Amino acid sequence: MPSDNAHTVPGVLPDGYARVAGRDKLKAEIVSNHTSAPSKDHRSKVASAFTHGAHPVPAIPASAGLQFIPADMFENDDHNDPRLGSTYTHALGSQYPYDEEPEVQLPHNLQSVSHIAVDIGGTLAKVVYFSPYRSAAAQDGQARDRGVLRFGRFETDKIEDCIKFMRRFLADAKSDAESRVRDWVGNESAMPYITATGGGAFKYYERIRRELGVEVLQWDEMECLIKGLDYLVASGTDEVFTYNTDIPPHSSTDPKRYVNSGPATYPYLLVNIGSGVSMVKVMSPGKYVRVGGTSLGGGTFWGLLSLLTGARTFDEMLALADDGDNRNVDMLVGDIYGTSYNKIGLDSSVIASSFGKVLKKKMEAEKRAEDGANRDPRRRSSLMQIEGAQDGAGGGDVGDGRMFKSEDIARSLLYAISNNIGQIAYLQSEKHDIEHIYFGGSFIRGHEQTLRTLSFAIKFWSKGSKQAYFLRHEGYLGAVGAFLKRDDGQPVTQ
Amino acid sequence: MPSDNAHTVPGVLPDGYARVAGRDKLKAEIVSNHTSAPSKDHRSKVASAFTHGAHPVPAIPASAGLQFIPADMFENDDHNDPRLGSTYTHALGSQYPYDEEPEVQLPHNLQSVSHIAVDIGGTLAKVVYFSPYRSAAAQDGQARDRGVLRFGRFETDKIEDCIKFMRRFLADAKSDAESRVRDWVGNESAMPYITATGGGAFKYYERIRRELGVEVLQWDEMECLIKGLDYLVASGTDEVFTYNTDIPPHSSTDPKRYVNSGPATYPYLLVNIGSGVSMVKVMSPGKYVRVGGTSLGGGTFWGLLSLLTGARTFDEMLALADDGDNRNVDMLVGDIYGTSYNKIGLDSSVIASSFGKVLKKKMEAEKRAEDGANRDPRRRSSLMQIEGAQDGAGGGDVGDGRMFKSEDIARSLLYAISNNIGQIAYLQSEKHDIEHIYFGGSFIRGHEQTLRTLSFAIKFWSKGSKQAYFLRHEGYLGAVGAFLKRDDGQPVTQ
Repeated sequence: MPSDNAHTVPGVLPDGYARVAGRDKLKAEIVSNHTSAPSKDHRSKVASAFTHGAHPVPAIPASAGLQFIPADMFENDDHNDPRLGSTYTHALGSQYPYDEEPEVQLPHNLQSVSHIAVDIGGTLAKVVYFSPYRSAAAQDGQARDRGVLRFGRFETDKIEDCIKFMRRFLADAKSDAESRVRDWVGNESAMPYITATGGGAFKYYERIRRELGVEVLQWDEMECLIKGLDYLVASGTDEVFTYNTDIPPHSSTDPKRYVNSGPATYPYLLVNIGSGVSMVKVMSPGKYVRVGGTSLGGGTFWGLLSLLTGARTFDEMLALADDGDNRNVDMLVGDIYGTSYNKIGLDSSVIASSFGKVLKKKMEAEKRAEDGANRDPRRRSSLMQIEGAQDGAGGGDVGDGRMFKSEDIARSLLYAISNNIGQIAYLQSEKHDIEHIYFGGSFIRGHEQTLRTLSFAIKFWSKGSKQAYFLRHEGYLGAVGAFLKRDDGQPVTQ
Repeated sequence: MPSDNAHTVPGVLPDGYARVAGRDKLKAEIVSNHTSAPSKDHRSKVASAFTHGAHPVPAIPASAGLQFIPADMFENDDHNDPRLGSTYTHALGSQYPYDEEPEVQLPHNLQSVSHIAVDIGGTLAKVVYFSPYRSAAAQDGQARDRGVLRFGRFETDKIEDCIKFMRRFLADAKSDAESRVRDWVGNESAMPYITATGGGAFKYYERIRRELGVEVLQWDEMECLIKGLDYLVASGTDEVFTYNTDIPPHSSTDPKRYVNSGPATYPYLLVNIGSGVSMVKVMSPGKYVRVGGTSLGGGTFWGLLSLLTGARTFDEMLALADDGDNRNVDMLVGDIYGTSYNKIGLDSSVIASSFGKVLKKKMEAEKRAEDGANRDPRRRSSLMQIEGAQDGAGGGDVGDGRMFKSEDIARSLLYAISNNIGQIAYLQSEKHDIEHIYFGGSFIRGHEQTLRTLSFAIKFWSKGSKQAYFLRHEGYLGAVGAFLKRDDGQPVTQ
């Protein structure tokens, strides 16, 4: 078992760090500062470290799951524009909830892992690669036979950033492999290559091959998801957890409970929530079928909220949801009945219609404006004032939400999408007679409300007979699977 | 069987019409003009007919399913304001697709139906009541023993309009009943009353009782839905139809096919799509269980579209959807893979993520604006221009949709919600071993794309083994059920 904060322990700094002598302090700062958006000054320092240093490999902060900040962002003259930081550098959000998580341990044979895996989805491209540990005493190039998996993500729309990063990784890995061959500690099979999965592995196949000039092994997305899940579940680390919805939010008790690690129990349902949602029934390693899915996924949440609120990053949207009250926009059973609908067991607090209060409230506001206009001709323009409130000029907290709060809209949409996925997952598990439901994918991001809503939905619909399982590395299942695909044997865990 | 256009045949004008001598022509105009929003002139004429006529009962156009236009709308001084017409009078839309449908025939005993039924949902209140046919020769008060059911709807938020209408109905019915008692053709049991269902029947119970001073019989919503469905299915009229998705849109062949009428086949799943969605498994008349539902229903469609587009009425929203292309906002399998994902049978045209292209396109536009600003300092403001496009000042076809077309957004949302309901309905039908799935509720409104999407979803998920059934009077199941609840015997059909 690795130490929980192995990546911050001096002397076991990962590959890349130890070799750039004299900058450990700065790099450590990157590691410890990654939970908040870097300040302008900080970014400038990082930029200069990356672009003017002796070693061109961008040093990825060592925390597994931490977002990679593309170096070229800092080569841009525009880094004085505060918008740039929030729009580009942190478009995917900087606050990852698992900053303290242990890295995942890999098989012993280093020479089989001189490659990088990429899972290119509709919105995000996820990379996974290996860094051997090197002690200070091992700087002679003799690697110790252990290391960690590292994780990073890019926007698929900026696939050029991802390719640029892979190019640097490969160049470094190649020179490393060549020096090993020279030193008789390596062989040709260790020459770097790329394993790729996700839709983009096919869409961008030619481009990646052409631009990087290395072998690109494509693997089926579902296969990789399952291989990644199986590996992580059996990894021996705190990876799989449940979420106890009986513990109220903000309680001192952690509603997350890590479950005993061990091989996955077949059959299971894997619900992968990325831009869209795939549901896969897994009967055994390598035997699976995609039973369904829904188009109402992360892409829907991000797309609609970017239209409806000023939020520009995923984390900003989730933060909005944290502060919102969906009852201001959702129609509850109590809003319709005035009470619970006991005969069929619907509590008054159940959401009858997501966003069901919006039209009603808009009409009311217009009517009030009309009434005002009727009483006093000088106030005729009040209706237009309400309409003008659409662009944030007044009348509501946030422009695009008009008279509705962005927070409330975000909360409502998060509930709607998570509940819906939970219900469909439950129904699919019923149809296919499955007990275990795992949720993965980049939508979840360890967000409390999302975990709570998905857990609650499974519990509610199954009347408590089923349980949702989550993973720390939820967004990287496919990438981990692609990484492991080189040899199909069961990965060794420490 | 009644004539298909009984309501426009002179001499069989329904109750209320024949008695207001000399205005038949005007009233016929109301009937025939109801598919388009009345012009200002037309509305003024109607207003004057309603408010200055000898008989105070507002003459509801005879077409079943036609929206009732509250008389008080025309007493408002503001009827010169074109907004009033679109915002209030036609908030629920005027273009009802079943204008030519036959009315539903009722049992012979007129004296048991001197009541009005109301189903008060989260967004709409639906009324159903009975009008006996009276020939010109029968104006002596001697009614013929047949008539039609009439349908109307109000916004629940304007429940006062609905109550006002019921008051007029009841006053008329009461004086009618009293004259019958005087004439020895009626008895006390024919004194008017109200049957009510839906959540609002409970929420507004005291208010309706107090304001109208008559008996209000409350009936359970699910029971009424089922009773209404059973009655309509067995009504002997063209009521139940299927939709053939193999026939392309705008084809000369009607994709709707009316199925042989007869008793409903048990068990069936009733999917009622109002503001929210309820799914009820019906084992036999009176034996049912609510098996599920979803909060993503009509209220979500109306609410989100009212925020995202300039549309203010349901029909306007549906008309937008007709003209839209969801591929401009939805992420398709082909957008991710560059091709189909054949291994798991996902065609490139399948929607992977609803609204999944929105964030991507927004970021691209911002990046272009930034790039432009970088090249030319004078163009620094271009980013702000893009942001300014949010309120419709430029940059896109419709302000609230920013650089996206309202039409595309409406189409995407219609697909998302209909597909989702279809999938959940299918999964529930599988879990509960049900063959027949009926769709009802005010969301559908006979809209082609909605019918097509729901039909396709059932066909797709069931691999062609199941079929969606629709009803002409889809929005009035609960109200019809409440109307029939007075006597629980099997209704007689002609």
